[in-house]
Amino acid sequence: MLLPDLVVVGGGQLARMMQQAAIGMGLRLRLLAEGPEVSAAQVIVDQQIGDYTKLEDLRRVVSGVPVLTFDHEHVPLDFLTALAAQGHDPRPGPDALRYAQDKAEMRVRLSVLGVPGPLFELLADDVEEALEELADFGYPAVLKTTRGGYDGKGVWVVHDPDEARPILDSGIEILAEELIDFRRELCAQVARSPSGQLQVYPVVQSTQVDGVCKEVIAPAPELAEATALQAQNIARQIAEQLDVTGMLAVELFETTDGRVLVNELAMRPHNTGHWSIDGARTSQFENHLRAVLDLPLGSGEPRQRWTVMVNILGGAVLDLDAQRELAWAEVPQARIHLYGKAEIGRAHV
Amino acid sequence: MLLPDLVVVGGGQLARMMQQAAIGMGLRLRLLAEGPEVSAAQVIVDQQIGDYTKLEDLRRVVSGVPVLTFDHEHVPLDFLTALAAQGHDPRPGPDALRYAQDKAEMRVRLSVLGVPGPLFELLADDVEEALEELADFGYPAVLKTTRGGYDGKGVWVVHDPDEARPILDSGIEILAEELIDFRRELCAQVARSPSGQLQVYPVVQSTQVDGVCKEVIAPAPELAEATALQAQNIARQIAEQLDVTGMLAVELFETTDGRVLVNELAMRPHNTGHWSIDGARTSQFENHLRAVLDLPLGSGEPRQRWTVMVNILGGAVLDLDAQRELAWAEVPQARIHLYGKAEIGRAHV
Repeated sequence: MLLPDLVVVGGGQLARMMQQAAIGMGLRLRLLAEGPEVSAAQVIVDQQIGDYTKLEDLRRVVSGVPVLTFDHEHVPLDFLTALAAQGHDPRPGPDALRYAQDKAEMRVRLSVLGVPGPLFELLADDVEEALEELADFGYPAVLKTTRGGYDGKGVWVVHDPDEARPILDSGIEILAEELIDFRRELCAQVARSPSGQLQVYPVVQSTQVDGVCKEVIAPAPELAEATALQAQNIARQIAEQLDVTGMLAVELFETTDGRVLVNELAMRPHNTGHWSIDGARTSQFENHLRAVLDLPLGSGEPRQRWTVMVNILGGAVLDLDAQRELAWAEVPQARIHLYGKAEIGRAHV
Repeated sequence: MLLPDLVVVGGGQLARMMQQAAIGMGLRLRLLAEGPEVSAAQVIVDQQIGDYTKLEDLRRVVSGVPVLTFDHEHVPLDFLTALAAQGHDPRPGPDALRYAQDKAEMRVRLSVLGVPGPLFELLADDVEEALEELADFGYPAVLKTTRGGYDGKGVWVVHDPDEARPILDSGIEILAEELIDFRRELCAQVARSPSGQLQVYPVVQSTQVDGVCKEVIAPAPELAEATALQAQNIARQIAEQLDVTGMLAVELFETTDGRVLVNELAMRPHNTGHWSIDGARTSQFENHLRAVLDLPLGSGEPRQRWTVMVNILGGAVLDLDAQRELAWAEVPQARIHLYGKAEIGRAHV
């Protein structure tokens, strides 16, 4: 058995798509998977089943392999610090990843860096005190769990104390943000390597439905050049000042009055970047791997004038194979990328 | 464990590159590999180690899976006939594959179909008789083993009986062909599905060095449109009349007097088609899988004006990782695809 080039923690579709890029480059991935049938475990031979919330499972999977990277941002930071102390290189490292794990830390850090974002306030643990802070902050407000939210989960728009109270009552740490009157959502991605190389992707327009990315147009149509540059510079600045390695996605609001404000950060390939597989000179998955291994980065330039990505999740479709055929028959130029979610559309044996 | 969508026999780089396409489409491959470290076995989870020259190994790997396809053309035809009799679908089937396995059968069949090719003669088993036939046929001549040759192996140019005799003495079946005065080599590829769908790729120019494909330019520069169409029509005709399923590559000579003549056939993805991974709307690997599974085929159209593929095999390079970095640094727009040959460039553990 050959030693892998790097370890990927987490067996979701992002790890699966990394493997597609890895095969071309002749890179060997070792996977820490939640189970033998998760998306990436279907396609990565060198795999261990384990739990990323157990340090011993992480220690076992990285044995002999310096670099590790992630399918998601949820590995406990103190485990990553422990692995780093033993000579491993988590990329991104814990000092960067904390800002992707905790929205309150992210907001405070970005405001210190002068990066434009919504007004925000960290609410007190005490519910009555938090309600008073919120009254001062002003309604409507967006409440967010500082940790663990994703795809619109852990985000609530509240218009008065009656709506806010049950959320604050839950006892989880809550961040309040101003509700932004936005024209649309944008995303700016960059790849950055430990040696400081940087590749910028075009700013894309992302349409979210119920908190889930539904459609991406690359590049964002009718985006003022100055705004595009500002968005790219924000992504570049965050990548450098937070010392991000690998792909960074900065989700942004374009406001009705022409500003861009940072909404969320992701330090990994991102669903708003899937268009790059077929639409960019170098896909976000290839550049993520090249970045975390400190290989020369590839260009993020688009390969054609427009690329549109439509993200189809869940729904009533049971026979994925038949739907794939229909899609190809209707849109012959469509490039189809399945997430490898095994639970639908296939006969088990 | 989920049932795979198809079985691939043979663990070389063509099967490896099929897996890259399969991941995107959400198709599951099962591999019959020569060993656990061969190219495709590094990247296909569902794998069995076995020998394609043993019917029981083939029977075991296709158990429960209707469709099988191939990394190479060497599976014995009577085994494929036996599998077909049990309800499996080898694609391409044995009735097509025989013409890729046996050059004498190919020459006879194509000449019956009226497809242009070099003059040829099947030589007698008896050496003296064969030498007389060869004298009538004329020198110089190209001698070829009818079976098992590849990459220039099993091909000799002979100028007189003294050069011919040791080859005829070897006792293997030998085909004589006229030595073609060619301007260059071309290749025409098509994908064809069992239901008769057909997708044509642009005709490419291929440069062979010592019998190995060294460089491909897609499409072939300064190729007369009539010649390109003729080459594509030859590929189309062969695919249809030989009932080929999957990818067909027709290697052609463009003669100095402006004709195209069929040189070789391959019924699988081909090294002259690797440019299509990055250069065509649909790669030859994706279309091979779509074809053998009778899914809608994708367009073989080029994605840009020119694509150049350089094939680097063997040589003195021991550290492939370092060379990959150098290549990217020197040609940033290069897309690198490694064959996953494990024996060089990596530390074993």
